[in-house]
Amino acid sequence: MRLRSYPLMFVSIMTFPLIVASALAAEGDWTIGSRTLPAPVAGSEALRISISSTPAPNVAMASQPVDDATLTTMGAPKSLDLKALGKSAGVTITKDTIAGVKVYHVKPDRIAPEHTNHLFVHLHGGGYVLGGGDSSVTEAVVVAASSGISAVSIDYRMPPEAPFPAAVDDTIAVYREVLKTRQPGQIAIGGTSAGAGLSFAATHQMKSLNLPVPGAIFAGTPWADLTKTSDTLYSLEGIDRILVSYDGLVESLALFYADGQDLKNPLISPLYGEFDGFPPTILVSGTRDMFLSDTVRVHRKLRDVGVVADLHVFEGLSHAGYLVVEGSPESISTFQEVSMFLKTHLK
Amino acid sequence: MRLRSYPLMFVSIMTFPLIVASALAAEGDWTIGSRTLPAPVAGSEALRISISSTPAPNVAMASQPVDDATLTTMGAPKSLDLKALGKSAGVTITKDTIAGVKVYHVKPDRIAPEHTNHLFVHLHGGGYVLGGGDSSVTEAVVVAASSGISAVSIDYRMPPEAPFPAAVDDTIAVYREVLKTRQPGQIAIGGTSAGAGLSFAATHQMKSLNLPVPGAIFAGTPWADLTKTSDTLYSLEGIDRILVSYDGLVESLALFYADGQDLKNPLISPLYGEFDGFPPTILVSGTRDMFLSDTVRVHRKLRDVGVVADLHVFEGLSHAGYLVVEGSPESISTFQEVSMFLKTHLK
Repeated sequence: MRLRSYPLMFVSIMTFPLIVASALAAEGDWTIGSRTLPAPVAGSEALRISISSTPAPNVAMASQPVDDATLTTMGAPKSLDLKALGKSAGVTITKDTIAGVKVYHVKPDRIAPEHTNHLFVHLHGGGYVLGGGDSSVTEAVVVAASSGISAVSIDYRMPPEAPFPAAVDDTIAVYREVLKTRQPGQIAIGGTSAGAGLSFAATHQMKSLNLPVPGAIFAGTPWADLTKTSDTLYSLEGIDRILVSYDGLVESLALFYADGQDLKNPLISPLYGEFDGFPPTILVSGTRDMFLSDTVRVHRKLRDVGVVADLHVFEGLSHAGYLVVEGSPESISTFQEVSMFLKTHLK
Repeated sequence: MRLRSYPLMFVSIMTFPLIVASALAAEGDWTIGSRTLPAPVAGSEALRISISSTPAPNVAMASQPVDDATLTTMGAPKSLDLKALGKSAGVTITKDTIAGVKVYHVKPDRIAPEHTNHLFVHLHGGGYVLGGGDSSVTEAVVVAASSGISAVSIDYRMPPEAPFPAAVDDTIAVYREVLKTRQPGQIAIGGTSAGAGLSFAATHQMKSLNLPVPGAIFAGTPWADLTKTSDTLYSLEGIDRILVSYDGLVESLALFYADGQDLKNPLISPLYGEFDGFPPTILVSGTRDMFLSDTVRVHRKLRDVGVVADLHVFEGLSHAGYLVVEGSPESISTFQEVSMFLKTHLK
């Protein structure tokens, strides 16, 4: 393939706004003015109603750091009625341990014919501190039910007892056991937010350990870079109603998890690893998702080394919005895409 | 596939920011505060330098309507040294008319073996008013050179002489002629901005006329909805350094082109049409692109009816940014993806 340099040939199309632009900014940073943001007209009705009934995110409050004691309190495992949850979703949930790691098995009442021998290894979100215990299984339930695939959700160890690399170690320990009864191409791994980031980190670690990588990854709005680097951490601050700001809870979670390690360690911020040899990956984000940049940056890293990688971005969705408004068209479409992707790429 | 409703099971993961949120907003619209936006650290060096040396977009100035006389002056065709342009890119450019419509043939010095019998029908951007004349061919030159595919770029009629539906009519007229010597699956159609929107509109029209649709579409940041509906028209106002604001030039162009017709006519705003039967489509946008929402809304429309549709979003790119910073990694990656997509999907 050849791409020669091409001269300033787009000037006539592209310079028009520059005509009305003001004088050069002093140092390169831009000050962006305030604005009024209506609920997304082109989102689903369910999403619009949900957003309209949510207050405008309060950046000043959300950008306050959260101390470790408060994080620990927030991260205390919640109990759920797993029997009722399973019944409502058409799955059976059972607790277990694999290689000493707490897990939840999720078996759908109806397993899709394509997935008879397949397994979805799920990693929950919550910034590596929150979302543990029974609630860790909830997304796995949705994937299992909507795809018709058996799942195992890993309730990996977290701070304060077990900061990085415990989450990676636990994931690898379970994966090694799973590999004893299944071919790697029969296994998918994935989750949302930190769960998606951990899926990438674990895949980096598998490569380091010369383990075969799984057959597919589902990365929902991955926390792929724990530093404040991504463009949408700035541009969508206060517009993402879930994350709101990097400077408060998000950064506090990053530091609590990393426990003094370099945030750019590829096992902490998997974006900084090498993505050659990764399996086909489906990525999901939204136009209001502060991790949109994390998502698309990983997507480009995968594409740049020729990995099959499908990107889906939903109108008006904040971070993990497909998990927030239950039964919304955005949520249903997300898990339909995941289902089709797994059916296409698992062996 | 089954997706039962699932109860509020993500509460423990997802409600944490709501804890720090303020009281309910009165009416649903949010006021979003001002912010400081650094140049995208994770963009390429070329992009960062280009953005750092651009002033912060001036929304107040950019949101002034532009009158038809000024638009007409801005839209006056520019002449380019086509011989030099072709030589620098490794293509030969020749003017012609097909079915009475002005076109430019672009023949690459080296035609890729896969594309021996293929043709890329190019439609230029510029809001259906700007970008005509010699400059209309420039993007076709990049696609032809980078993909190794012959192209014909249509210099379709525009206002003030020929508002909607002239652009659609001219595209269909040329397409009918092209169909006389090629199978539809050997033809791709596409462009950027209005050129991408027109590609969709023309495909709607082909379906209405019972013409076979082409084998692939390249839709770079499509202007798919000429009304002010998309979420990113609000959220990225003043952050997109090319479009800056819908309320000024963009809306003026829409009204000048539509010439009193309903902006939601699917041949004007193709998002409102039906996308079943569309060919495989590649879509490109950026995290600062005010048409990001248009792009992802079309992507969902295509996916919802099962069309193969690949989405690519680049970190830090404004509208059509891959055409603005010549030779940047973002630009090269865009046209590499287009090339791979055409090679995969044209017959």
